[in-house]
Amino acid sequence: MKTRTVSIVGMGLIGGSMALALREKGFADKVIGVESNPAHAEKALELGLADEILPLHKAVETSDLVVLATPINAAETLLPVVLDLATTQVIMDVGSTKKTICESADQHSRRGRFVASHPMWGTEYSGPEAAVKHAFANKATVICNREQSDADAVALIEELYGLLGMHLVYMNAEEHDVHVAYVSHISHITSFALANTVLEKEREENAIFELASGGFESTVRLAKSNPAMWVPIFMQNRDNVLDVLNEHISQLRKFKVSLEKENYAYLEELIEKANGIRRILK
Amino acid sequence: MKTRTVSIVGMGLIGGSMALALREKGFADKVIGVESNPAHAEKALELGLADEILPLHKAVETSDLVVLATPINAAETLLPVVLDLATTQVIMDVGSTKKTICESADQHSRRGRFVASHPMWGTEYSGPEAAVKHAFANKATVICNREQSDADAVALIEELYGLLGMHLVYMNAEEHDVHVAYVSHISHITSFALANTVLEKEREENAIFELASGGFESTVRLAKSNPAMWVPIFMQNRDNVLDVLNEHISQLRKFKVSLEKENYAYLEELIEKANGIRRILK
Repeated sequence: MKTRTVSIVGMGLIGGSMALALREKGFADKVIGVESNPAHAEKALELGLADEILPLHKAVETSDLVVLATPINAAETLLPVVLDLATTQVIMDVGSTKKTICESADQHSRRGRFVASHPMWGTEYSGPEAAVKHAFANKATVICNREQSDADAVALIEELYGLLGMHLVYMNAEEHDVHVAYVSHISHITSFALANTVLEKEREENAIFELASGGFESTVRLAKSNPAMWVPIFMQNRDNVLDVLNEHISQLRKFKVSLEKENYAYLEELIEKANGIRRILK
Repeated sequence: MKTRTVSIVGMGLIGGSMALALREKGFADKVIGVESNPAHAEKALELGLADEILPLHKAVETSDLVVLATPINAAETLLPVVLDLATTQVIMDVGSTKKTICESADQHSRRGRFVASHPMWGTEYSGPEAAVKHAFANKATVICNREQSDADAVALIEELYGLLGMHLVYMNAEEHDVHVAYVSHISHITSFALANTVLEKEREENAIFELASGGFESTVRLAKSNPAMWVPIFMQNRDNVLDVLNEHISQLRKFKVSLEKENYAYLEELIEKANGIRRILK
């Protein structure tokens, strides 16, 4: 296999986990970290996520691939800077929205070096300590607007995700942003709102969580997610998220109405409809 | 240890898992199953959950302990029947609401033989095939209105849950029903509603679930739960569930407003507040 140097900008949950995976799978011989938070930079070296930490321009210079793994607002600010510095390098992002970053990339003369991607893996934790080995495997990863990227750049990213054991899905950026509003962003909003619902109550009753078990944890764990990552996502995908949120509130209202009217046949129907999710989640 | 026969009425997820645990921990030498669904009865024997299946009155006659593990509406119908048959036997339920069944027990002259309990463990699956070994351990279990039960009956149930490795919590039935509305029932409603939100969308777009990953699964898995179990729970705990549901919808509306007004400082504040759940979920 070719000797490759990969720079990862943002040594957090995704960047750190990718560093571990790319080295383990032999995709990268050397991983350079770019990290604006000095404590995270130190931690990344200590945990062996990066071989060294370099300033952005030096990292890009010596790399074959640059992975933007910062929150999406920072990735968009950095993308034109990296494209300015790039010659033959490939640049990939891993952000949770794709329309805005693709539109911004389209303005750049070196657009072809950029591959817009979104690996559908994550946890509710953040920072270098959140990085884990064997992340990504058996999950889907999306490549958006492939036709705007150079063929060699796409081939490299396909090789990378293939080595990570991910299942490749191709779609355009707008389609992607609608889909993730449904299968990821709304889950985070319901989880945040559920946490706030019970935390409100906890102020009156300390014992409330004594009875919390697996079901509660499952629906609320995403509420631990980092606002620095999620505010920009909701900001950029505002229209889609609002559509889904309105739909979700109206679905909740059906449950409310069934209870208010004591219409338990309707309640049963709503639950049976929801059971249809068994077709999808095995 | 004393030789004991335990009857379990309802050989489903909870009854079946309890049968396995009680035998493994040496609490029961013999487990009799009572099961109105012939296919479930057969399955329970085949899986070794019960030593034999008997009609209710015969089962009660030869038992030291009768565990009511049916959906809560059936448990309430059966409780006076079992109390009528009981002499020295102890009767325990495992239902998700406690106020109605305790009120109904209070009418009975043999009230003292009944111990109202709710082990805080479950999964989204149901039926005898859903039964698992090593369920219950390290979770909380609630005993309600202990002072209404005979001391020997409470002692037996405490011994049982102690052997299962559960942490005992005592509260009155009304308090219990408020708490579970917050830490269990609302999680199921949000999950059902979330499933309906995305299933609605799926009718237009088949590809929607291709991108679903861990976060989605986590928030939606409870939507697989059985309506035969959950409709009676929502019915009996209607007032508490409606309170929490109204609060939850108003919390979701705050997210909606922050997005509509593009007030991202407020959105960040809402998320930071939700992050407070880190104190509770480690």
